[in-house]
Amino acid sequence: MNIAQLNDAAREIREELVRATDQNGGHLASNLGTVELTLALHCVFDSPRDKMVFDVGHQAYTHKLLTGRSLEGMRHANGVSGFPDFNESEHDPFIVGHSATAVSTALGLARARDIKDEDFHIIAVVGDGAFGGGMNLEAVNDLGFNPTRLIIVLNDNGMSISRNVGALSRHMLKLRTAKGYVGFKKGMERFLKGLPCGNFIFKAALNVKNFFRRMLIGTTVFDNMGIKFIGSVDGHNIPELKNILQRAKEETVPVLVQIRTLKGKGAEKAENDPVAYHGVASALANGKKEKTFTKSFGAFLTDMARENEKICAITAGMTDSTGLRAFADAHHDRFFDVGIAEQHAFGLAAGLAKGGMRPVVAIYSTFLQRGADQIFHDIALQRLPVVMCIDRAGFVGQDGQTHQGAYDIAILRAQGIKIMAPADPYQLKQMLNYAFTLDVPCAIRYPKGGGCCLPQCELVPDRWQSVKKGEDCIIVTFGALLSQALEAAGLLEAEGISVEVVNACFLAPDAQYIKDITANSLFVLEDNAYAGGLAEAIAGLVQNNESIKHFASVSGEAGFNIHDDVFAQLKAAGLDAASIAELVKNTVRT
Amino acid sequence: MNIAQLNDAAREIREELVRATDQNGGHLASNLGTVELTLALHCVFDSPRDKMVFDVGHQAYTHKLLTGRSLEGMRHANGVSGFPDFNESEHDPFIVGHSATAVSTALGLARARDIKDEDFHIIAVVGDGAFGGGMNLEAVNDLGFNPTRLIIVLNDNGMSISRNVGALSRHMLKLRTAKGYVGFKKGMERFLKGLPCGNFIFKAALNVKNFFRRMLIGTTVFDNMGIKFIGSVDGHNIPELKNILQRAKEETVPVLVQIRTLKGKGAEKAENDPVAYHGVASALANGKKEKTFTKSFGAFLTDMARENEKICAITAGMTDSTGLRAFADAHHDRFFDVGIAEQHAFGLAAGLAKGGMRPVVAIYSTFLQRGADQIFHDIALQRLPVVMCIDRAGFVGQDGQTHQGAYDIAILRAQGIKIMAPADPYQLKQMLNYAFTLDVPCAIRYPKGGGCCLPQCELVPDRWQSVKKGEDCIIVTFGALLSQALEAAGLLEAEGISVEVVNACFLAPDAQYIKDITANSLFVLEDNAYAGGLAEAIAGLVQNNESIKHFASVSGEAGFNIHDDVFAQLKAAGLDAASIAELVKNTVRT
Repeated sequence: MNIAQLNDAAREIREELVRATDQNGGHLASNLGTVELTLALHCVFDSPRDKMVFDVGHQAYTHKLLTGRSLEGMRHANGVSGFPDFNESEHDPFIVGHSATAVSTALGLARARDIKDEDFHIIAVVGDGAFGGGMNLEAVNDLGFNPTRLIIVLNDNGMSISRNVGALSRHMLKLRTAKGYVGFKKGMERFLKGLPCGNFIFKAALNVKNFFRRMLIGTTVFDNMGIKFIGSVDGHNIPELKNILQRAKEETVPVLVQIRTLKGKGAEKAENDPVAYHGVASALANGKKEKTFTKSFGAFLTDMARENEKICAITAGMTDSTGLRAFADAHHDRFFDVGIAEQHAFGLAAGLAKGGMRPVVAIYSTFLQRGADQIFHDIALQRLPVVMCIDRAGFVGQDGQTHQGAYDIAILRAQGIKIMAPADPYQLKQMLNYAFTLDVPCAIRYPKGGGCCLPQCELVPDRWQSVKKGEDCIIVTFGALLSQALEAAGLLEAEGISVEVVNACFLAPDAQYIKDITANSLFVLEDNAYAGGLAEAIAGLVQNNESIKHFASVSGEAGFNIHDDVFAQLKAAGLDAASIAELVKNTVRT
Repeated sequence: MNIAQLNDAAREIREELVRATDQNGGHLASNLGTVELTLALHCVFDSPRDKMVFDVGHQAYTHKLLTGRSLEGMRHANGVSGFPDFNESEHDPFIVGHSATAVSTALGLARARDIKDEDFHIIAVVGDGAFGGGMNLEAVNDLGFNPTRLIIVLNDNGMSISRNVGALSRHMLKLRTAKGYVGFKKGMERFLKGLPCGNFIFKAALNVKNFFRRMLIGTTVFDNMGIKFIGSVDGHNIPELKNILQRAKEETVPVLVQIRTLKGKGAEKAENDPVAYHGVASALANGKKEKTFTKSFGAFLTDMARENEKICAITAGMTDSTGLRAFADAHHDRFFDVGIAEQHAFGLAAGLAKGGMRPVVAIYSTFLQRGADQIFHDIALQRLPVVMCIDRAGFVGQDGQTHQGAYDIAILRAQGIKIMAPADPYQLKQMLNYAFTLDVPCAIRYPKGGGCCLPQCELVPDRWQSVKKGEDCIIVTFGALLSQALEAAGLLEAEGISVEVVNACFLAPDAQYIKDITANSLFVLEDNAYAGGLAEAIAGLVQNNESIKHFASVSGEAGFNIHDDVFAQLKAAGLDAASIAELVKNTVRT
């Protein structure tokens, strides 16, 4: 294709991106920003022989289109995933969804290539936000020290998910705007040569490597880390992109190509507000305005911080998605967005707590995994009163397998950390208040969306709450599953089975409750991994109660690998009301 | 104290360090390297008002001495810990043991100080190896962007635990050796001023910030990240150290002070071989030459890699301590030391596996926690055949609480990863061979030290092994605990109780075995955290077997917080033979 055709293609792709995200929801702004880059990559390189590793992968829609995948029904059971997935196409080396992994895994591919003496190119496309992630920096540090042929495309859009933070990003911005450098060099040459002895000085200066660049912009971080820096070019100019990628392709050393893109490019609304258009809901879903846990959390914490001047909030690059925007505005000096740096988020919280503050780390369950060791070493071991507010716990819907909140319970329970799970926003508020009375770390986990609405009752530390009485059997569950359990109980009552539903709002066995059970069947439902979860914890106590003849549980596994709405995931796992009722009926009646 | 007195003190401290490590074992080389630094820190700063955060903490012995703590009996129950611990002294802000955390937690302290409008200094002492750790770089990135008064002392000894790796370290070496810079600047001034118009050129050049330094050594990584770089000075010269720390103290911006130290300084043997003297055993222990799992692992893998050219080995800065030295020498092109960068270690393994290799990540259990998310996102989700060889699983002895291998089982089980635990080196070899036949990830976990010696028998996938028959009750355990269980069985036989001992070499419930149990008591012993461990996993199945009237388990918790030898930790947890026998006797006889 010639340039005009490529520009036409870019326009058509943009239309399809807007249409597809309008239909299915998804990441709009980041994909609009990488249309030309992806076209240029596919012009210059030969996928799947050459490997393209997209970091995070929320910018790979154009890549999907160019590798023969339709976005029709994307992010739903019968369509493609919203992220790269090798089950869909050999053009995707990895399933991705978390950030800062691309250089690391690409370097593994490169070293395997070298060992096997093969010959192909590997391109890691990394955003400027993810570049500051610890895993990425570790990988760059390794690559620069033991160099091999690898191309890093730094997609610099000046923001990760919301605004950009971090000294590295500021450094990149400096490079990005150092466009005058070539002109300066020429001017300086002319000036020096005009002086007596200037010619001699000019030549002497040239002997010092990169003299002029250093003088104007200093050495780049990348140079210092052993990566050849090429940049920057306009990431929406296809000829420039092809040109610079071709140059990178000819290098035998690791190179970093900085391209400047505009998040949301080509769609006026998204260009003007890329944060709002980072992820968009489908047109259909847009109508629903739910009172989410996320919003409630943000509002409560902002209020509480007015009364309690020790409360601080920390996010790892997700101010809006964790509900902290209002807090950031109201309590600027106690709000810390550390960028995509989950390990440091927990370390910072530990320091703040040790310094007498009451830090709250607001984080998605799936990204909490990045800080598992910091939660152990810097928080739990020190018994520091850090409150972890874990959003997107359990099923997350269309983002699918990389984003499911499946392991937070196992990680935190192993370390003996108290975990709470609110049934609704009212309970979330109670739990936050309770959390600030503790002098040890604790966690509050809540799902995407809103909760059910239970009669308000007092929170009794470490005790479960019976939210519906019944005699024949007991369902213990928490969070998002309570509404399914209550609905199942309704279905079962209609068939003459009386069910008690228990809210395990404190996510640990309530030994007294279990001891007092007189029903003969006990069911545990949880939207997380079975191993290390609540059912296993309860299993150890069930044998102490002889009334309980049947003990069964359902956990989330079977729903985790699906990209579709939350209900489809619940159903796949057998955690929707109908499946629960069926399970209970079959067990109780045998 | 004047300089002469300080130098005398340094000499006396060195003598005490050698004596104390000879008596108790511990980290010798790193402590010998930081004697003068610690003296200078305590001269210039006012601890505990000013906070000294030692990264890793294995270099804090001098700090302990200067804050009134004796090293008599260090690393044993009645002596101090080998790492900082605020339970010992208000001069230690945190309990530490893992690396790359200091800047992050110190920044938390600094921001708490700023919020509360307090006024004191915070000093993070970080080694050059740990500086490349992701968590550290995340924190530096944050500090440079939102600067506050914080002093980072970069203790550059040119090696982390063994040799140094990483582009950053190379960069630091360049800075370290750029000693001629000041002289160069003066010479250049003289040269330029001697030229016609030279004076004018010199003044113009000065207007470009840091002109001469940039010309000679470029901008430092630290400058680019917004941290003021001061250095480097001889880390064994007390006047120079005091001088530079005083300068740092007067700054109102974040500064990094690079000091050059010699690991092992002052003890000839340790200076010549700092790797061997990184950690030393007490003179008493030196006599014992055990056939450890670590050594066997290294030998087996090196051999296997001769036959199987796909096998690669990865370590995160611990070539020797994970037993990989022979592999590194024999298979240089398939060996990767990524430095202190556990996240990247797993990402690299994922890439290598995707590229068709058979990577083995050799890592301590406690440091595997750093890669929990990478194990999930980059390995388990992709079903890539990475073999994780987890050393120091369970009790680790004198390094104590920060180093215990307590959570690997919970983390891996939750993700559905197959875990094996060899009873002895022979079984370790079988497991390695079996691991390379799998096309999914798996883990092999083994303790510090050696195993017991069982009769050799075939490994049957996913099945337990009965290693001693008996009728009255069953003890299920694995790894290091098998020898305690067998010893307990001997004690119990003498009292007329017949015990079967089962090796849960595959660390998951053997459903068939549990179903077939006819004894009425079942005990599970594990040297890891209870939640998410083997006992909980088994508990879910015990109810299906009506023979089992008593089910009890003992896990490691009560031994984890103790710094003393492994046996003391076993005893504290009730996992030594005598305690096990007592538990079984009391249960079976009631």
